[in-house]
Amino acid sequence: MIKLIDKLLNGECFVVTSHCNPDGDSIGSITGLCMALMKLKKKVFIAMDDAVPSNLEFLMKPSKVAALEGDMSGEYSLIALDCGDYKRLCCREDIKTGASSIINIDHHVSNDCFGDVNYVDKEASSTSEIVYYILKQISKEKKLDIIDADIASSLYTGLITDTGNFMYSNAGADSFNMACEIIKIGIDKDSIVKNLFQNNSFSRMKLLGDALNTLSLHGDNIATIELTQEMFRRHNVESNSTEGIINYARDIENVEIAALFKEKAENDIRVSLRSKEYADVNVIAQKFGGGGHVRAAGCTIADTIENAKHLVLSEIKKALKR
Amino acid sequence: MIKLIDKLLNGECFVVTSHCNPDGDSIGSITGLCMALMKLKKKVFIAMDDAVPSNLEFLMKPSKVAALEGDMSGEYSLIALDCGDYKRLCCREDIKTGASSIINIDHHVSNDCFGDVNYVDKEASSTSEIVYYILKQISKEKKLDIIDADIASSLYTGLITDTGNFMYSNAGADSFNMACEIIKIGIDKDSIVKNLFQNNSFSRMKLLGDALNTLSLHGDNIATIELTQEMFRRHNVESNSTEGIINYARDIENVEIAALFKEKAENDIRVSLRSKEYADVNVIAQKFGGGGHVRAAGCTIADTIENAKHLVLSEIKKALKR
Repeated sequence: MIKLIDKLLNGECFVVTSHCNPDGDSIGSITGLCMALMKLKKKVFIAMDDAVPSNLEFLMKPSKVAALEGDMSGEYSLIALDCGDYKRLCCREDIKTGASSIINIDHHVSNDCFGDVNYVDKEASSTSEIVYYILKQISKEKKLDIIDADIASSLYTGLITDTGNFMYSNAGADSFNMACEIIKIGIDKDSIVKNLFQNNSFSRMKLLGDALNTLSLHGDNIATIELTQEMFRRHNVESNSTEGIINYARDIENVEIAALFKEKAENDIRVSLRSKEYADVNVIAQKFGGGGHVRAAGCTIADTIENAKHLVLSEIKKALKR
Repeated sequence: MIKLIDKLLNGECFVVTSHCNPDGDSIGSITGLCMALMKLKKKVFIAMDDAVPSNLEFLMKPSKVAALEGDMSGEYSLIALDCGDYKRLCCREDIKTGASSIINIDHHVSNDCFGDVNYVDKEASSTSEIVYYILKQISKEKKLDIIDADIASSLYTGLITDTGNFMYSNAGADSFNMACEIIKIGIDKDSIVKNLFQNNSFSRMKLLGDALNTLSLHGDNIATIELTQEMFRRHNVESNSTEGIINYARDIENVEIAALFKEKAENDIRVSLRSKEYADVNVIAQKFGGGGHVRAAGCTIADTIENAKHLVLSEIKKALKR
């Protein structure tokens, strides 16, 4: 951490970026770190080509942050936050290549240490957690309380995004310690939680109700769930806003494989597959020209839901027999 | 706390109980405290007339806990945990009246201090959190590490039950500090989270589907949801396994107050109320002889669901107008 802190304290101008399709941890760590660097009298710019998701816009609201989008001139270091791969950095090529050095701060297991200075802590729950402990160390060295409520709010957002609000196994003692200290600084935790997790649309909840009505068990370790065109029409919901629905099938006791059949159009069925502990759903998806990971995969079948279900269930049963 | 700790350290025999329809905080605080008292060489019995919900049975598994269900003879103090009201204590009348004293440990705002010794901390997230800090104090006084992994697991279960896994506003700095210290003791956090939040029964998911079919908005900031006897029968689900269903109503965008109407029997409607940011649902529940907290309260109405809904909605609307 010493090398990283020296680099931050000795630099004058920083451009901060993260991965494409930014999430709460990327936007949280960007805004948190930028506000801290400004307190240290550094010149800071944010370079992010992708839009900030609407539920995270609140993080860009502090006026000091809103002012950070602009163009940089002169020498700068590029700080890459929460990005395991140089190619996924969400900024223009000339910003990447124009940097005098790249500072890579991340927690992804797959990070290949592409920076000139790399601080990759694969044990950390989130990049925001890493930034929090870096700022604490800087505060100690500079005898200055850097982490104010705005910075704390940004970093808390990143922390709860990447830990599923402390639900995932990556939430460790350091995560809870950080949360405890941040609460004491005084943040509007409820408002952040609301923005991230408690802002469902009414129609999406009605769609979930319809989906659960189709939930079926096949044996005791396979669960299926269906979403039809008729349901999307009835609740006036886009067929792409179905994230998380398959978890209701997967999170049933004894279920190992869950399959969601989504009728995107007539005879155009998107199949999502999830496994809980041991089954490889990637192999099943590949039988139908799809793919993914061991625990999450998908494929498309040009047939009716009924037929797609029949085909996929037969492959799932074969896979579970092995 | 001094008086309470004296009472615990000087007593010889304790009978421990909680509220009817026990939840994770009641079973968690009971088992956590009982194991600790046994370590202090006390004679301990658990007196709970209602069954332990199946997803909490793991808390009763340690052999030292399983042995605690029996009958008491001689003098004993009754410890009431997580129960705001003497009438809701979940044990036989003769156990209540036979106690030489009642020790009331709770966090409900509505607690009327019915005990001979009362330790009611309305700021605490959960009774398990209170028990945790009591045990820490006893550990310090007795120079003894009382809180082992089994006790920590019980208390963590209570903590995450009552804070909705740190999602609710009652999760404060003390809650996160407790979580941090407990993780360091070493518990199987993932298994507890799975038991509480990711181990749904198939029939409970079908019940959720039925419940979501009744989800309605009243204006844009009130949502109601209903559970009828017919639904419980159809899915063969106990009427007490409905925890969490109300959150689907509360977590809709713009909704401030959510109400769940559960038909426990004909003309016996249990009403649960939740608020998101500012409304005081405790005041609303009190109008019907119930109570609870600012953000979570409940009451019982002896009428049909339709009439109960009418009555409660009218009070909710009044409260939101204020």
